[in-house]
Amino acid sequence: MDFTQIAKNAKEASLKISDLSTEIRNEALYKIADELETRSTEVFDANKQDLSEAEKLVRSGELTKSAFNRLKLDENKMRDMLQGIRDIAKLQDPVNRKLLVRELDEGLTLYKVSCPIGVLGIIFEARPDVIAQISSLAVKSANAVILKGGKESVNTNKKILSVINSALEQVKGFPKNVIQQVFSRDDVAEMLKCDKYINLIIPRGGKNLVKFVKENTKIPVLGHADGICHIFVDETADLDMAINVVTDAKTQYPSACNSVETLLIHKNFKGKDSLLASLQLSEIKLTDSPESWAFEYGDKILSYKIVSGLDEAIEHINTYGSGHTDCIITQNVENAEKFMNKTDSAGVYFNVSTRFADGFRYGFGAEVGISTNKTHARGPVGLDGLTIYKYKLIGNGNIVEDYVSGKKKFRHRDIL
Amino acid sequence: MDFTQIAKNAKEASLKISDLSTEIRNEALYKIADELETRSTEVFDANKQDLSEAEKLVRSGELTKSAFNRLKLDENKMRDMLQGIRDIAKLQDPVNRKLLVRELDEGLTLYKVSCPIGVLGIIFEARPDVIAQISSLAVKSANAVILKGGKESVNTNKKILSVINSALEQVKGFPKNVIQQVFSRDDVAEMLKCDKYINLIIPRGGKNLVKFVKENTKIPVLGHADGICHIFVDETADLDMAINVVTDAKTQYPSACNSVETLLIHKNFKGKDSLLASLQLSEIKLTDSPESWAFEYGDKILSYKIVSGLDEAIEHINTYGSGHTDCIITQNVENAEKFMNKTDSAGVYFNVSTRFADGFRYGFGAEVGISTNKTHARGPVGLDGLTIYKYKLIGNGNIVEDYVSGKKKFRHRDIL
Repeated sequence: MDFTQIAKNAKEASLKISDLSTEIRNEALYKIADELETRSTEVFDANKQDLSEAEKLVRSGELTKSAFNRLKLDENKMRDMLQGIRDIAKLQDPVNRKLLVRELDEGLTLYKVSCPIGVLGIIFEARPDVIAQISSLAVKSANAVILKGGKESVNTNKKILSVINSALEQVKGFPKNVIQQVFSRDDVAEMLKCDKYINLIIPRGGKNLVKFVKENTKIPVLGHADGICHIFVDETADLDMAINVVTDAKTQYPSACNSVETLLIHKNFKGKDSLLASLQLSEIKLTDSPESWAFEYGDKILSYKIVSGLDEAIEHINTYGSGHTDCIITQNVENAEKFMNKTDSAGVYFNVSTRFADGFRYGFGAEVGISTNKTHARGPVGLDGLTIYKYKLIGNGNIVEDYVSGKKKFRHRDIL
Repeated sequence: MDFTQIAKNAKEASLKISDLSTEIRNEALYKIADELETRSTEVFDANKQDLSEAEKLVRSGELTKSAFNRLKLDENKMRDMLQGIRDIAKLQDPVNRKLLVRELDEGLTLYKVSCPIGVLGIIFEARPDVIAQISSLAVKSANAVILKGGKESVNTNKKILSVINSALEQVKGFPKNVIQQVFSRDDVAEMLKCDKYINLIIPRGGKNLVKFVKENTKIPVLGHADGICHIFVDETADLDMAINVVTDAKTQYPSACNSVETLLIHKNFKGKDSLLASLQLSEIKLTDSPESWAFEYGDKILSYKIVSGLDEAIEHINTYGSGHTDCIITQNVENAEKFMNKTDSAGVYFNVSTRFADGFRYGFGAEVGISTNKTHARGPVGLDGLTIYKYKLIGNGNIVEDYVSGKKKFRHRDIL
């Protein structure tokens, strides 16, 4: 099938799923989990096919060992995947929520109601568990989705999707084509051009993937390319707290996007030498070259810079940062407030490790991704990020001329 | 000055204004209105210069009479402009609003706080009153703005901006470069490319302008190109209501984007002939050619089509519509609900004229524009559309390792 037809089908499916009740969508989620559980052997078998191909690539150096591990689906990952789907079913329905109810006049009521965005395009690298997760988020939020996974996991992806779709077929009233998959590079190119039918692109993978997607589409993209997070240790910072927080932010999971990359230290901070020595004891490699200020190591390497004070720290972050998550460690509340207001990042933290920037830690129940965008959704994005709203206006033959002529007047009384 | 420098200055100004109190921003708005009032003669004089040039263009046929009228600034427009600025000052502050306060754990509190987007790029045609309006919306929402107005109003625009900026200079603590202006076509091209510093583009003008902007930038664009609004008259519609609503929606202000363009009539609607005859009596020209289904007349011309029922009506709208505002007239509540759920438009109306789709009528106090986007802001957009949010996380040295190791557990208790 050509891509345009797939996209048209997705659009049609998106309009149908938008009219389904919460109950049917949740039933579909439980059905997906049950079916995957029942047929897990098939999924593991398909995964083994991919793994045996991938082993060759690892041996020839075309695939990294860590990519191989991400590709591998074991009992633990399967259990987490199933739990994840069932957890999503339990979350509050993100659509059909009344965000505003306003009586414009007697018998003329405006409802602002959350609704799905429409069609999502998801491009992800070789992590087969992403399919189940994204499909579940789409079903929950009543969006249709077109998936394009990494070529290394093609057999696993095909199998998981066929299991998901056979589950959905068993759900009465559930429309076709809510979840579709494409496979080729050409399909990616078509997807990125298809702004007529696709409303949001979510790239799930490394920064090169995200950058490529952002540079090659006019469709809104939800995601972040870089996670260059900073911690500024102010003059009045508590030394022990600084050591603890910076160590956690760098070493707890160094390859995470919310790990700290640059440490800024106030020139008058007395604990400076002790802090740096402590970090080195935790096997953090310190570097202070300007070339590294906009570089994400994703490793136990930390850039540091001595700054003249709060203003220079804020300016440094706004210049070299990626707007992801940045922290001040200080005992000076006024400085903390200034830092949080003037630092232009999705997360601005005061005496807390940057590693907290995460949808689950924020209590969202599910995470769509982390966004460094300045519109729509910013920071860790939960199911809400897959919704927009529409205005329903309900009256009884009301016309504008009555209000323009002065015959009637608006009340604008909020009911909700 | 080259455009990049202007954009850099705007970015810097945006970070400074984001830290200003509500009081200072409102003081700035009143100052702008006062200064424009005091120096209105200067503004009218500048406008006369533009008008005398424009008159020649009208005579040579290069400018339409209606464009000339939009360019003309008279006492009435000035009064409305001043009132508009003072009204914006009185509105609730859209930034620094707490959208969520959640205790993640004891002594670890997450705040989701509304904040400005950053730098707005505004491209508008020859309506000099737009400068004052957009500048006021930017100041209120703590965004910086780069304005590019139509060349026909260059003298008026320059004068208004110089008055605005001399007002802002008198406000203690108000940063420079919050409102800047550019003039050339090259500047527009640079603006559309400048995704490093500009966060949102708002085109204010005809659909050709909006289409051009949307097709030539990767920066998010807030606006709508087309307003192809529909009214579906269902089988059970009340005839008088249908006549009233359709007549209002077409004739009350035919060139408005929320005027109806296509009338869909249920094949079994008994009042069909009476309805069409009534509309013709109101001097509405009726047409039923498929070529017109995706065309915005902006005039007293109405396409109409007989449809087999609700499903065909919804499908027609989702195929040919622009996702702006669409209405069903019916006595059948179930049909109305289905229509409102399945029609993929910013406004879905039940027995109400489409002309109500407007920020002031919705009670927003100010209107940034009407958006047919599926992300960020949809429908009539108030000041909220110029904001995003950031997460402030305040703790006392909290680290993630404690939660991963199981030493501590999240509470996720909502305080707001």
